[in-house]
Amino acid sequence: MKVSRKQKFHTHIGVIDHNDAIGKEFGSVIKTNKGKYLFLLEPTIYDYVLKSQRSTQIVYPKDLGYIAARTGLQSGQKVVEIGTGSGSLTTFLASIVKPRGHVYTFDVESKFMDIASKNIKKAGMEKYVTMKKFDIKKTTKPPIIDADLVVVDLGDPWTLILQVRKILKGSGSFIAICPTMNQLEKTVSVLQKNNFCDIECTEQILRTIEARVGKTRHSFHGIGHTTYVLFARKAYNGSIRAKRKPKKTDAV
Amino acid sequence: MKVSRKQKFHTHIGVIDHNDAIGKEFGSVIKTNKGKYLFLLEPTIYDYVLKSQRSTQIVYPKDLGYIAARTGLQSGQKVVEIGTGSGSLTTFLASIVKPRGHVYTFDVESKFMDIASKNIKKAGMEKYVTMKKFDIKKTTKPPIIDADLVVVDLGDPWTLILQVRKILKGSGSFIAICPTMNQLEKTVSVLQKNNFCDIECTEQILRTIEARVGKTRHSFHGIGHTTYVLFARKAYNGSIRAKRKPKKTDAV
Amino acid sequence: MKVSRKQKFHTHIGVIDHNDAIGKEFGSVIKTNKGKYLFLLEPTIYDYVLKSQRSTQIVYPKDLGYIAARTGLQSGQKVVEIGTGSGSLTTFLASIVKPRGHVYTFDVESKFMDIASKNIKKAGMEKYVTMKKFDIKKTTKPPIIDADLVVVDLGDPWTLILQVRKILKGSGSFIAICPTMNQLEKTVSVLQKNNFCDIECTEQILRTIEARVGKTRHSFHGIGHTTYVLFARKAYNGSIRAKRKPKKTDAV
Amino acid sequence: MKVSRKQKFHTHIGVIDHNDAIGKEFGSVIKTNKGKYLFLLEPTIYDYVLKSQRSTQIVYPKDLGYIAARTGLQSGQKVVEIGTGSGSLTTFLASIVKPRGHVYTFDVESKFMDIASKNIKKAGMEKYVTMKKFDIKKTTKPPIIDADLVVVDLGDPWTLILQVRKILKGSGSFIAICPTMNQLEKTVSVLQKNNFCDIECTEQILRTIEARVGKTRHSFHGIGHTTYVLFARKAYNGSIRAKRKPKKTDAV
Repeated sequence: MKVSRKQKFHTHIGVIDHNDAIGKEFGSVIKTNKGKYLFLLEPTIYDYVLKSQRSTQIVYPKDLGYIAARTGLQSGQKVVEIGTGSGSLTTFLASIVKPRGHVYTFDVESKFMDIASKNIKKAGMEKYVTMKKFDIKKTTKPPIIDADLVVVDLGDPWTLILQVRKILKGSGSFIAICPTMNQLEKTVSVLQKNNFCDIECTEQILRTIEARVGKTRHSFHGIGHTTYVLFARKAYNGSIRAKRKPKKTDAV
Repeated sequence: MKVSRKQKFHTHIGVIDHNDAIGKEFGSVIKTNKGKYLFLLEPTIYDYVLKSQRSTQIVYPKDLGYIAARTGLQSGQKVVEIGTGSGSLTTFLASIVKPRGHVYTFDVESKFMDIASKNIKKAGMEKYVTMKKFDIKKTTKPPIIDADLVVVDLGDPWTLILQVRKILKGSGSFIAICPTMNQLEKTVSVLQKNNFCDIECTEQILRTIEARVGKTRHSFHGIGHTTYVLFARKAYNGSIRAKRKPKKTDAV
Repeated sequence: MKVSRKQKFHTHIGVIDHNDAIGKEFGSVIKTNKGKYLFLLEPTIYDYVLKSQRSTQIVYPKDLGYIAARTGLQSGQKVVEIGTGSGSLTTFLASIVKPRGHVYTFDVESKFMDIASKNIKKAGMEKYVTMKKFDIKKTTKPPIIDADLVVVDLGDPWTLILQVRKILKGSGSFIAICPTMNQLEKTVSVLQKNNFCDIECTEQILRTIEARVGKTRHSFHGIGHTTYVLFARKAYNGSIRAKRKPKKTDAV
Repeated sequence: MKVSRKQKFHTHIGVIDHNDAIGKEFGSVIKTNKGKYLFLLEPTIYDYVLKSQRSTQIVYPKDLGYIAARTGLQSGQKVVEIGTGSGSLTTFLASIVKPRGHVYTFDVESKFMDIASKNIKKAGMEKYVTMKKFDIKKTTKPPIIDADLVVVDLGDPWTLILQVRKILKGSGSFIAICPTMNQLEKTVSVLQKNNFCDIECTEQILRTIEARVGKTRHSFHGIGHTTYVLFARKAYNGSIRAKRKPKKTDAV
């Protein structure tokens, strides 16, 4: 948030004067006019993701983290995202692949893209993201090739597998954000017929623990379902079960 | 793995000739002498972590991912790791902060450090990691300052909190790898007395799903406990509950 | 187990003489010939279930317990089980509804029924169980009526819903053992069209904790998927969402 | 609920006339004055437990069920409950052990006991329950002996282990309701020193699944922590780890 010296910031525990915050080191405590204390914290990508303006359901940190760890996402990689949504997943991916890597993200809804654009800028990631209005279903030509990772966050990921193959480099990673079991089932079935390997469907359950001396326990508040995550890698000429020679009708 | 043309690679599904693999694109399938197929996949950081030579318990991808997502770890950051162990967490951290960020990692066991060093090199991360034999408990001087993230992977993280404060930048992130509830309890208690905020203890449960047409279900094989993860951020002058002025006896 | 004075019992920690056990109070410790100790414990229904001879996948205690608690199963009730399997669920149900309640159980596989019969007898529940070879799919006449609870443990529970309605008393409970998501989906869909209410699909995750002074944590060994459990209650004339008058074509 | 012909029942979806309900079969649908439908369901023990008037935290069905299944609770058993609370656990236990079994329940808070008494009566279990104001900590004499199961639902179960031993029959089951990890840790430690065996600490996680054609997934709403459950069985003369002869100083 950009702050001006002349303004005040109103919170439920009182008002602070911007003058009290400007120039202070991150981590400092500021007193409100009601005598309460506020922490002045530098926003992290986690904060940007959770506070992003939302046009659609976002991908939560527990799932973002597993996506990064499972695909071995790293600085320098080329990532393609199909379904920009509110841009929070885009922001996360860009924060890791920067400065030499890049995220190419495609959507078809202009109004989502405007919101996403703002969210990505707020987090300072616009230099590492190329966003384009593009309907990948209307073409057989891949918009990008040789990607390390393709992430699909649309309702019907199984319809895009042939395009995903063309975008990915050999042995590159594919992730589909699948909120339902049926999406997993359909997408896995198509992946198996199209020479993907190392297929894994997971769900990440995050539990919080209240650690207090002499009375440590899990939180009463449960954390519910967000999405399942499907992972696979692109192979050539035969799926794991295949014992036949590849046919010409197999996807490229 | 470096491969020589003259060698063969023996697996439980047959032998492959290195000549068959060299020059092939990643993702290719190679036939063994028993007529079975093997995929030639480019190793990811995930693969390096899981295949690392282990001197100690490693931190698993489900936990690595949450650490990255929760702290907002990103390319360019300065990270300090206390307790190098087998170097797999080091490898993961370096893969994200590179090329301009850096990981400083300290341990006291030479024999662990030798193994860690090999694991880090194998994954190609040695340029982004400085490893040192250093007993942080024997000094009050921080080995590094202004870190974005300090990760402690020792049995008694609560003994290091004053040192962690000195290493961290204001509002920087702290992670403790805590396999037991007691470690969470003791460490949180010390953090609360030493001006850390945004304290969170979590466990990440990973469940795998077998998605097959008409018979989709969770895996029969359960994934058990690995570790709890403690997160906190460095603040100044008063913990969340503090309603008093900071005293001189508070940690720096 | 019936024991004879003349026999010995061989275990991996040594041999015990039956004479040493006979007449001892339950809970006693017996020394083996190798100097190790064995506990002489009275078997509970839990023990009978877990040690039952298995012809098919059994229903595990974590799921048995939830079935009892969710349906409000109690002493005196009339229960119908379709799909006897190895008889362990039968044993559990009988142990709760006895002595005045009864379990009627039906299967079509003679060889399963022989094993089930032995398991039920071993646990002392044969007086409270009527087992019959009966193919409920081949008739439209219910074998029993006015049941408090019908449990279906077959692969296609959705095909039996009309029969289940005839067996159940008004507002009686229905449980389907559904190892896959697809079974839940199909069965719920048929239940909704046939005037069942209070429909709930659950899974029970059991986690074990190693509580040891100063190092308490969850077990490294995870407990995986067993089955999902579907619960519903029989209503008349309209499902929860119905805003229409019941038609004659609705199931009875 | 007893209903009188002259009254009406007001709900958020309209009013129903008691006359419309009286005489109807359970499972029937009744139309409110707003044209909405209500189901007339016979309350089960599950309903009584969840709708019980609460003086204290109740034990939830997911935990009740596991207690029953793990201990092999069955009709005819003698159960002792220490800490009656709101009587919902008492109600559940009684519903299973009746008609020849019995639950003896003790508490020290008269006002809790009044509420518990009402809850137990409402569920029709008063014949199978003896409730007494009794402070088990103030005596070394057991109020009952030869119990099949002792359930302790107090904050400090570890202080009662010697009394629990006296109440239990040989190889009888012990359950402690432990909302915190610290209670598990302390209680297990005392059990191990006092000749209990088969010690197990668990937590039961209940997840609900929304099974809908083509979009089946877990519920967004998570179910959080309720309590951990500790199970053990009474043995004599030596704990599992003991390799010594029992001493006179061991608990009886």
